[in-house]
Amino acid sequence: MPAIPGVRLATAAAGIRYAGRTDVLLALLDPGTAVAGVLTRSKCPSAPVDWCRARLKGGRARALVVNSGNANAFTGKTGRDAAKFTADLAAKASGCKPAEVFLASTGVIGEPLKAAAFDGVMESLVTAAAPGRWEEAARAIMTTDTFAKGATATARLGKAEVTICGIAKGAGMIAPDMATMLAFVFTDAPIAATALQSLLARGVVDSFNAVTIDGDTSTSDTLLAFATGAAAAHGAPRIARASDVRLGAFRAAFERVLQDLAEQVARDGEGARKLVEITVEGATSKTSARRIAMAIANSPLVKTAIAGEDANWGRVVMAVGKAGEPADRDRLSIWFNGIRVAHKGMRDPAYDEATVSAAMKKPVIALNVALGLGRGRDRVLTCDLTKEYVAINGDYRS
Amino acid sequence: MPAIPGVRLATAAAGIRYAGRTDVLLALLDPGTAVAGVLTRSKCPSAPVDWCRARLKGGRARALVVNSGNANAFTGKTGRDAAKFTADLAAKASGCKPAEVFLASTGVIGEPLKAAAFDGVMESLVTAAAPGRWEEAARAIMTTDTFAKGATATARLGKAEVTICGIAKGAGMIAPDMATMLAFVFTDAPIAATALQSLLARGVVDSFNAVTIDGDTSTSDTLLAFATGAAAAHGAPRIARASDVRLGAFRAAFERVLQDLAEQVARDGEGARKLVEITVEGATSKTSARRIAMAIANSPLVKTAIAGEDANWGRVVMAVGKAGEPADRDRLSIWFNGIRVAHKGMRDPAYDEATVSAAMKKPVIALNVALGLGRGRDRVLTCDLTKEYVAINGDYRS
Repeated sequence: MPAIPGVRLATAAAGIRYAGRTDVLLALLDPGTAVAGVLTRSKCPSAPVDWCRARLKGGRARALVVNSGNANAFTGKTGRDAAKFTADLAAKASGCKPAEVFLASTGVIGEPLKAAAFDGVMESLVTAAAPGRWEEAARAIMTTDTFAKGATATARLGKAEVTICGIAKGAGMIAPDMATMLAFVFTDAPIAATALQSLLARGVVDSFNAVTIDGDTSTSDTLLAFATGAAAAHGAPRIARASDVRLGAFRAAFERVLQDLAEQVARDGEGARKLVEITVEGATSKTSARRIAMAIANSPLVKTAIAGEDANWGRVVMAVGKAGEPADRDRLSIWFNGIRVAHKGMRDPAYDEATVSAAMKKPVIALNVALGLGRGRDRVLTCDLTKEYVAINGDYRS
Repeated sequence: MPAIPGVRLATAAAGIRYAGRTDVLLALLDPGTAVAGVLTRSKCPSAPVDWCRARLKGGRARALVVNSGNANAFTGKTGRDAAKFTADLAAKASGCKPAEVFLASTGVIGEPLKAAAFDGVMESLVTAAAPGRWEEAARAIMTTDTFAKGATATARLGKAEVTICGIAKGAGMIAPDMATMLAFVFTDAPIAATALQSLLARGVVDSFNAVTIDGDTSTSDTLLAFATGAAAAHGAPRIARASDVRLGAFRAAFERVLQDLAEQVARDGEGARKLVEITVEGATSKTSARRIAMAIANSPLVKTAIAGEDANWGRVVMAVGKAGEPADRDRLSIWFNGIRVAHKGMRDPAYDEATVSAAMKKPVIALNVALGLGRGRDRVLTCDLTKEYVAINGDYRS
């Protein structure tokens, strides 16, 4: 992944929770960087989420501090103090205002975050910050993730080429209303904060909000986008509104990056062995298709069947039926990896168990449902539910 | 469990799916028996559910045929024919009208039910039917259940004593809207069908609809109540309306039976090792408390933590936050088995990990949440989510 002019990155091992690995990321952003964000809708958000929500109104960012190992959620006044302490520290070390520092924390909930640990590393993080260190940045923010997640794209904006780079972490407690755990997207395009906010709000619908691992919404879900504007120096036009027609190619590239990151999050679901792409068509609307797709994606019975490589379409029928959306049992058809197993309310007469069983062994399962009612269509991503998910989450805290 | 005058039971091994066990239950009901029912709200109901929904309007029942091993769901016209064939068969053998025969099927979805198998056993079922065979009746309808489920109670109705007996099967795919898989309740009280329907609709709210195993709603959920009226012969008054003041003791006993059965279903959740009783108080309403309790009860992260005997109250905070109901993080308190672990938005200062860990080893976990907002209170039952759940559901069909 290429460097983004105006963005410098550094990581450190502050010993928040983990031993022998990095757990703090500092991103330094050049003056004039615009920021936008989409945050968890949880009624019990973390202290960093509260911090970001208040600071997003300013629209300006100079630094981002992310830690893994502790979510600083449900930590009361201590947590709010820890957030402020961290922002003050980063502001002092990097020469900006605390209100221009954005924060995110991921990890265990309810344990006080010992923000003093950042004191020992902040100065050296500022000194070490350098462009293009995406891989180590993505590593520092991992919790139960099994691989570092990054995506990049370029696009023409006016006569200039601009770049977009994003990193994410996910793995569990992933559901829509915000679906991401943490994701940070950076670009050198000169886009005003309000326009960036519109781009992000639209882009999240079919990316992070179309992903579910376990239907559990984090207290800490944070997606931030930063636009340094550095590309203005080589001719990129300054964009004030998301409706600007010059944004077409950029918008597409930006959404590709969001979707790529979201897919990586689904692929790396806790304990997951299979990526599951659920497409519902023939619904009465896109919204209805989304609800039905999510009912399927969040069904433990569907997810365990896929873990067992069992094309148990009866459970798909069950999930369609429980979604509460218009559905007609006798028009329903279902495919697993292109093989039609159910048609018009019955088992497909041509259904061959051996062929379907072989298809279920693949690492990616495309599950298609046709309702036969209308033109509504939607697609969501999830993963299977394995014994490893239970093992990971049965002894995560202890 | 005592016999109910007017109810005779018989079971047989028809070889629907299982070998070496019974899989058909016939209940014969004396003339004049009233029937009421609550059925799944699934948009893709099974053929027997469609059958019962249409026949409940008549309010009269003479026979109930239940089979395990095959749900006769998503089986199209073949399934409808199989339901009709079964009802005709039972009507002929027992000398009633097909419209007075009620049906329920549980087991795999989407496989055609070979109703011809009932032909070989129906005559002998009618001949063998005898009072009080609750245990074998409960056994014949089991699928992945690990124990037969029954409950009984008696109550005064006027000057007579009346009896209530119920059986149920559950285990997986259990969620509200209807929460039961199959449950059948019988009484000799002389209660008209419309009054019985009101009693059942009210009784289900805090029993079967307050239970969730995995949030998955079956295509086949069926709760039927039968009132033979035999107790009229020894002085029980005929009850025409649910508002009849003479029903007080009966209503309480009836609800106890429903709640007892529902608790047994939760206790026997697939792979469950712990019964979890979730009480939410201080919500803005009972409805709000119910939604929050269900968000906790259906959270895979909460359920796996309990399986791991981890008092991970941070995940309870998460679940409260995702419910979408009014909640104030900074007023929230949480208890596990009476030990307060979180108070007013923070870890309880007096929280001792060793004490809580010991409490989490118990087979019943009481999880209490106080929101501190209002007087709304509710209670739901669930179980933990274990590797065994995944194993059971990863290879159930194959």
